Amino acid sequence: MNNHKTAEELAKQHREISISQFFEKNRHLLGYDNKIKALLTIVKEAVDNALDATEDARILPEIYVKIEELSREKYKIIIKDNGPGIVKKQVSKIFGKLLYGSKFHRLKQSRGQQGIGISGCVLYSQLTTGEPTEIVSSTGEGKVHKYILKIDVDRNEPKIISEETFDNYDKWHGVQITFIAEGIYREHKQSVLEYLKETAISNPHAHIIFDSPHGRIEFHRGTDKLPPEPKEIKPHLYGVEVGILERMLQETRARALASFFVTEFSRVGKQTAEEICNKAGVDPKISPRKVEHHQVVELIEAIKETKLTRPPTDCLSPLGEELIINGLKKELNPEWAAAVSRSPTVYRGWPFQIEVGIAYGGSITEPKLMRFANRVPLLYQQGDCAITKAVTGIDWKRYGIHATQLPDEPVVIFVHMASVWVPFTSESKEAIANYPIIIKEIKLALQDCARKLSIYLSGIRKAQRIAEKKMIYERYAPDTAYALCELTNEKKEEIEKMILKLVEMRWGETEAGPQTEQPEIQEKEAENNGNREEA
Amino acid sequence: MNNHKTAEELAKQHREISISQFFEKNRHLLGYDNKIKALLTIVKEAVDNALDATEDARILPEIYVKIEELSREKYKIIIKDNGPGIVKKQVSKIFGKLLYGSKFHRLKQSRGQQGIGISGCVLYSQLTTGEPTEIVSSTGEGKVHKYILKIDVDRNEPKIISEETFDNYDKWHGVQITFIAEGIYREHKQSVLEYLKETAISNPHAHIIFDSPHGRIEFHRGTDKLPPEPKEIKPHLYGVEVGILERMLQETRARALASFFVTEFSRVGKQTAEEICNKAGVDPKISPRKVEHHQVVELIEAIKETKLTRPPTDCLSPLGEELIINGLKKELNPEWAAAVSRSPTVYRGWPFQIEVGIAYGGSITEPKLMRFANRVPLLYQQGDCAITKAVTGIDWKRYGIHATQLPDEPVVIFVHMASVWVPFTSESKEAIANYPIIIKEIKLALQDCARKLSIYLSGIRKAQRIAEKKMIYERYAPDTAYALCELTNEKKEEIEKMILKLVEMRWGETEAGPQTEQPEIQEKEAENNGNREEA
Repeated sequence: MNNHKTAEELAKQHREISISQFFEKNRHLLGYDNKIKALLTIVKEAVDNALDATEDARILPEIYVKIEELSREKYKIIIKDNGPGIVKKQVSKIFGKLLYGSKFHRLKQSRGQQGIGISGCVLYSQLTTGEPTEIVSSTGEGKVHKYILKIDVDRNEPKIISEETFDNYDKWHGVQITFIAEGIYREHKQSVLEYLKETAISNPHAHIIFDSPHGRIEFHRGTDKLPPEPKEIKPHLYGVEVGILERMLQETRARALASFFVTEFSRVGKQTAEEICNKAGVDPKISPRKVEHHQVVELIEAIKETKLTRPPTDCLSPLGEELIINGLKKELNPEWAAAVSRSPTVYRGWPFQIEVGIAYGGSITEPKLMRFANRVPLLYQQGDCAITKAVTGIDWKRYGIHATQLPDEPVVIFVHMASVWVPFTSESKEAIANYPIIIKEIKLALQDCARKLSIYLSGIRKAQRIAEKKMIYERYAPDTAYALCELTNEKKEEIEKMILKLVEMRWGETEAGPQTEQPEIQEKEAENNGNREEA
Repeated sequence: MNNHKTAEELAKQHREISISQFFEKNRHLLGYDNKIKALLTIVKEAVDNALDATEDARILPEIYVKIEELSREKYKIIIKDNGPGIVKKQVSKIFGKLLYGSKFHRLKQSRGQQGIGISGCVLYSQLTTGEPTEIVSSTGEGKVHKYILKIDVDRNEPKIISEETFDNYDKWHGVQITFIAEGIYREHKQSVLEYLKETAISNPHAHIIFDSPHGRIEFHRGTDKLPPEPKEIKPHLYGVEVGILERMLQETRARALASFFVTEFSRVGKQTAEEICNKAGVDPKISPRKVEHHQVVELIEAIKETKLTRPPTDCLSPLGEELIINGLKKELNPEWAAAVSRSPTVYRGWPFQIEVGIAYGGSITEPKLMRFANRVPLLYQQGDCAITKAVTGIDWKRYGIHATQLPDEPVVIFVHMASVWVPFTSESKEAIANYPIIIKEIKLALQDCARKLSIYLSGIRKAQRIAEKKMIYERYAPDTAYALCELTNEKKEEIEKMILKLVEMRWGETEAGPQTEQPEIQEKEAENNGNREEA
């Protein structure tokens, strides 16, 4: 056997793979598994970017989406926003190059984070229809620029087909993108329409107009207040690993190790920095570049043993309980709704915050789980998501809610994770990875919210039982009256009237509606021993 | 509001993201979600490569794996093979650069396909321990080369720390890799041990020695025959899309459109090529470079309407029914086993083939699903996998197997997908994406195999019922004998002996074992109306 030759032969086949080639072949990783989902993915990537850009520029978003069927399974998709626009020289890279963006290297809550979403749409469009993407953009003061471009897949670089500049008479600012892509338009539970509907709930400050192939749908603002601007933060020492620390030591401008910790990380004071150095037996005044490998390992050990201040949480922009409740009421018209916002906490050094809402009854006819990450609705891969794990891990019967894994009653469960870095299970960002600390936080929020529902339901159900009792007494009143009349010789009509009056006195007030003010004891009961339905 | 400034500010933050940076931050996408799984991922990537390399070079694989705890949660992992080795100039790129490899651009069944697995191990090692990776390699005839390297994460390029060359006195060929990485060693159902055990089942031609922290485990060969070598094929026209066709037309060396189709695609004859051109109204003699965009679209339409020969299937290397049964028997020691290999078929132009095995009883105590793709066991993300969808979609009760979603009985279900391109749901290659045609093929194979089990079980269960009947008669024989003795005045002992003899004559032979030869009618029954247990 000539092994040598084989190794040489194998060597000839080795080649670099461009990231565009990789995702062209693995396009299901970006959310292009099928033609229905493809349209959703395109709209989602563009609208998420529009919401990020307007939020960054503190502009109340006006978003226009249009989906038009050009021929069988071929659609024109337009997304237009009133954001700050994109400066001319960035346009081609943002749309024509995968792994290019502004959000990957910063620690700040945003919808996009990877720099592959919007260029992925360009890639999918040209793959399926051969058509380039048109981008029109203006920053408001200068000109309007129009690009028509594709991606050079082998090199992962933009291929500009045409480039024009116009005068910007009306000072318009924003971005308008036109894709021509293969797809199928449907309005089912994982559709563009559902995505926009849920986006309106989690972004009540946005005004969205959607011209669908079936007509116009408009989502009005629920508030004119922009969400608070999340602040950019530095990494936290609890999340740092040997490899990263080693690299940061080489790249820092700090001149001494102690000041390196203070300037490059979140919430490290001079004293803490020196404590870490001393614990690790490394001179705090040494130049960061001169720290040796074994010292880096010792520093990491010392960090683990040092009590650190938690990272700041103004990098997060939660929705807040009020907005969640308003959103659920506005879009779902339930009979009852409540929400719980947990305090922020940390996983792998990254701050995150969980919010939960529950809506019950009214126009809701079916149980439903609505998942959100940084205000973006997640419509696919539900089975794989940390949120689903948490929801199915709750003993819903305890709270008077019938459930197999998910509740079987007309309940909508809304869960939102806000973080500077959401750990998604794939590039298509459809499910949150199963970090135990994240699941635990979601469960605590769910239990808290479910307790509120349980109190409400026990009120309703008590009222229902009483109403049933009353009905039975009323139904038997004539017979009872007849019997008493036989015994006492009083007038049957008089006796019947008296019985009905008694029934009304005893149970009549409950007809006014469910008793919502149940004492706290019931809440504790619910926590201690299970099924409220039987209590 | 000064939008211009904001757009400029945003522009400053835009940067290229290297693929190494991307996976360093998203390491859970490569299978490094937690420390237990990390060790599995490292062993898996290296062993998969070793099996691919030995198969390519037609060498019977000898694989050595060692996991040694260096300190708390810090391990040395060594993987050594007897493959063809790697030529010197390729070593650093293969291990020090993500998205570099020989398997992405070819259409041939192999375990690796993306060029990110093994460099991902280097990335994870240096991230968690700061340690470089050591690679020793020889192609057998030349020297032995030893590299110690890391990855320059910002540039996604190898960073060679040292490089040595030795004489190769014993003509050794192969690769030996040593990682030092963070991890936790466990021997549970998703462990290194389980991976090696299942690998031994699906690769019975491999000899694997594993020095675990708990001692040596050896997996002996079940066969000395290498699996047939899968052939490399060209793409099939049914899977080609506008964007790809357009690019291929630019890159081909063919001079005429018709010959482009014949030379660049699988199984397209001159006549078919001309048929396609004519249908699309494009001159078959035109230079491929001169085909215009609208003509490409028309060609794609014409392809859809043309009857094409299926792609060849010698690009696949299935296990075969015999090897599956032997593998299951060798590793699981069941009471019964069977297997079904389906004929190859095609999804998106790519050939694939499904094989299923079922083992029942014996040393098997619990139900278990074993999933494989190109002979590699898949241990994670079971819920998300096409194989699981297919298994839970089977009405197992029909086949006499009690099941809620997966069977509840001591049944091991083995499913293997062989393909030139397995569509995984993530880069960590743990689950197969839910293509309907793939799920359908798996279901058909499962039904076929389950039918065999059903026949076997109905035999056992009949025998069990008879044995129970016999036992009851035997138990009551003394009482019956006593009663008959009272009535007839015959000797009780004589009567009892006669009764037992009758029982033995009637049902005795069934003790010999289950009746395995059930008539075919039963099989049809099973297909038509459900639960065999009650039949």
